[in-house]
Amino acid sequence: MFDALLTPPGDSRDALIAAMRHAAIGGGKRLRPLLLVTTAAMFQVDRTQAKRAAIAIEAVHAYSLAHDDLPCMDDDAMRHGKPSLHVAFGETIAVLAGNALQAFAFEVLSDPATSGDPFVRAELVQVLAQASGAWGMIGGQVMDIAGEGQSLDLPAVTRLQQLKTGALLAAAVEMGAVLGKVPPEGRSHLRRYARDIGLAFQIADDLLDSSGDEAKAGKALRKDAAAGKQTFVGLLGEDRAREQARLLSEQAIAHLGQHGQEADVLRALARYIVERDH
Amino acid sequence: MFDALLTPPGDSRDALIAAMRHAAIGGGKRLRPLLLVTTAAMFQVDRTQAKRAAIAIEAVHAYSLAHDDLPCMDDDAMRHGKPSLHVAFGETIAVLAGNALQAFAFEVLSDPATSGDPFVRAELVQVLAQASGAWGMIGGQVMDIAGEGQSLDLPAVTRLQQLKTGALLAAAVEMGAVLGKVPPEGRSHLRRYARDIGLAFQIADDLLDSSGDEAKAGKALRKDAAAGKQTFVGLLGEDRAREQARLLSEQAIAHLGQHGQEADVLRALARYIVERDH
Repeated sequence: MFDALLTPPGDSRDALIAAMRHAAIGGGKRLRPLLLVTTAAMFQVDRTQAKRAAIAIEAVHAYSLAHDDLPCMDDDAMRHGKPSLHVAFGETIAVLAGNALQAFAFEVLSDPATSGDPFVRAELVQVLAQASGAWGMIGGQVMDIAGEGQSLDLPAVTRLQQLKTGALLAAAVEMGAVLGKVPPEGRSHLRRYARDIGLAFQIADDLLDSSGDEAKAGKALRKDAAAGKQTFVGLLGEDRAREQARLLSEQAIAHLGQHGQEADVLRALARYIVERDH
Repeated sequence: MFDALLTPPGDSRDALIAAMRHAAIGGGKRLRPLLLVTTAAMFQVDRTQAKRAAIAIEAVHAYSLAHDDLPCMDDDAMRHGKPSLHVAFGETIAVLAGNALQAFAFEVLSDPATSGDPFVRAELVQVLAQASGAWGMIGGQVMDIAGEGQSLDLPAVTRLQQLKTGALLAAAVEMGAVLGKVPPEGRSHLRRYARDIGLAFQIADDLLDSSGDEAKAGKALRKDAAAGKQTFVGLLGEDRAREQARLLSEQAIAHLGQHGQEADVLRALARYIVERDH
């Protein structure tokens, strides 16, 4: 569906569209779209509409990775086992394609094809914009950069990771519930689920960064230590970090207690997140 | 109002918020907010709501300038008579603050404080996202870059400028009408007005770039010719370009014929755009 929405117009903008596709299509674990579509399915949301919202959140995730890889950021040459965006298309197009992917996300969400209910469309935009901006993902990225070479404690690292990675994962679950017209008070246990798997995901990421396989990851590893970044593994050690991730995964599953088998995929995702090897 | 919406949280994200404020507050002609608020006033829109939407479109304009100034883009050290964003805050924060300003724009538009009507909120998001993304402003930026050193003809330059600058100016007028709950068919003359002043604005910009005063402009001039970019002045010569801008301004005013004195400010803006000296 990404494919159909990102069609080259047949003029000098084709490189832009190709760059957007390079960044957003055919790589990565698709965890955010999966969480969104799975949560939406619990509330009998039309699958095409859920997939459109999933494309929007993946576009935001993809733009953030593409910009993260820029020379003035982490300067990474590989992403998802292929050249990172600026290596493939140059820095200028990488910056612009990232910006265009962010606009694309909000264009898709605000389109009546994503929901016939304008309240749902506006709320989807609000949840994604809050989660990805200065008070969400980007705020966490800045905290992360500011923390380089600093001796952050566990609460500080938890807080920055909750913003940097957790906010968008929580948004994925919340957007599924928004599409299902679940009111805010009925979404709080899902937010708690998402908060816990978000942290578990980050701890698992830190574990993979410290002991994982670069070929499976499709990107350079062991960069956190080199950049002087404080991680969960650095603070807790590998064994306690692994145990903490497992506890968070169990706690996430416990938040789904009111749901029956319709939540089984969310439960499986909570387990997968801490058991994955890439 | 920008001020109240961008408050530093008192932690390591303060540099991010300071950078967003540096880029968005206290510089520039504020043409897009002015067009939006002026159009909204024609339809008796609450002034606070119109100002919120105006802040959103100015945030998008500001992020596009901040990213334009990056070393990998135009590499400009000055903007609005002060150091450009990456000079003041470094490239990393400049990229992130730009991204956060884009998210901020959609956060503001989707907030019920901007309109109690979710249809209006969703439509504001849609108009701004379409105008600023791959099929609008960014598409125009890419066409502009691709055209460097090429001999583009007048229709090609017109087309790229309609996207690069015109799309956001047209969005400003359209968002004012959306807030005023004017249906799409009742907005077409306003779009035509905006299209004409957008082109007139760009021709005036080209004239200023070729013969203007750097101190008044607050930025480096005569960069278009150096970059091998085709401009209206290059294609038409100064005299015909000036005449063309004046004709477009008159044509824009003619599109407002059905309105009485409530459209006088839009008429004055159409005149100002071609007469300004910076």
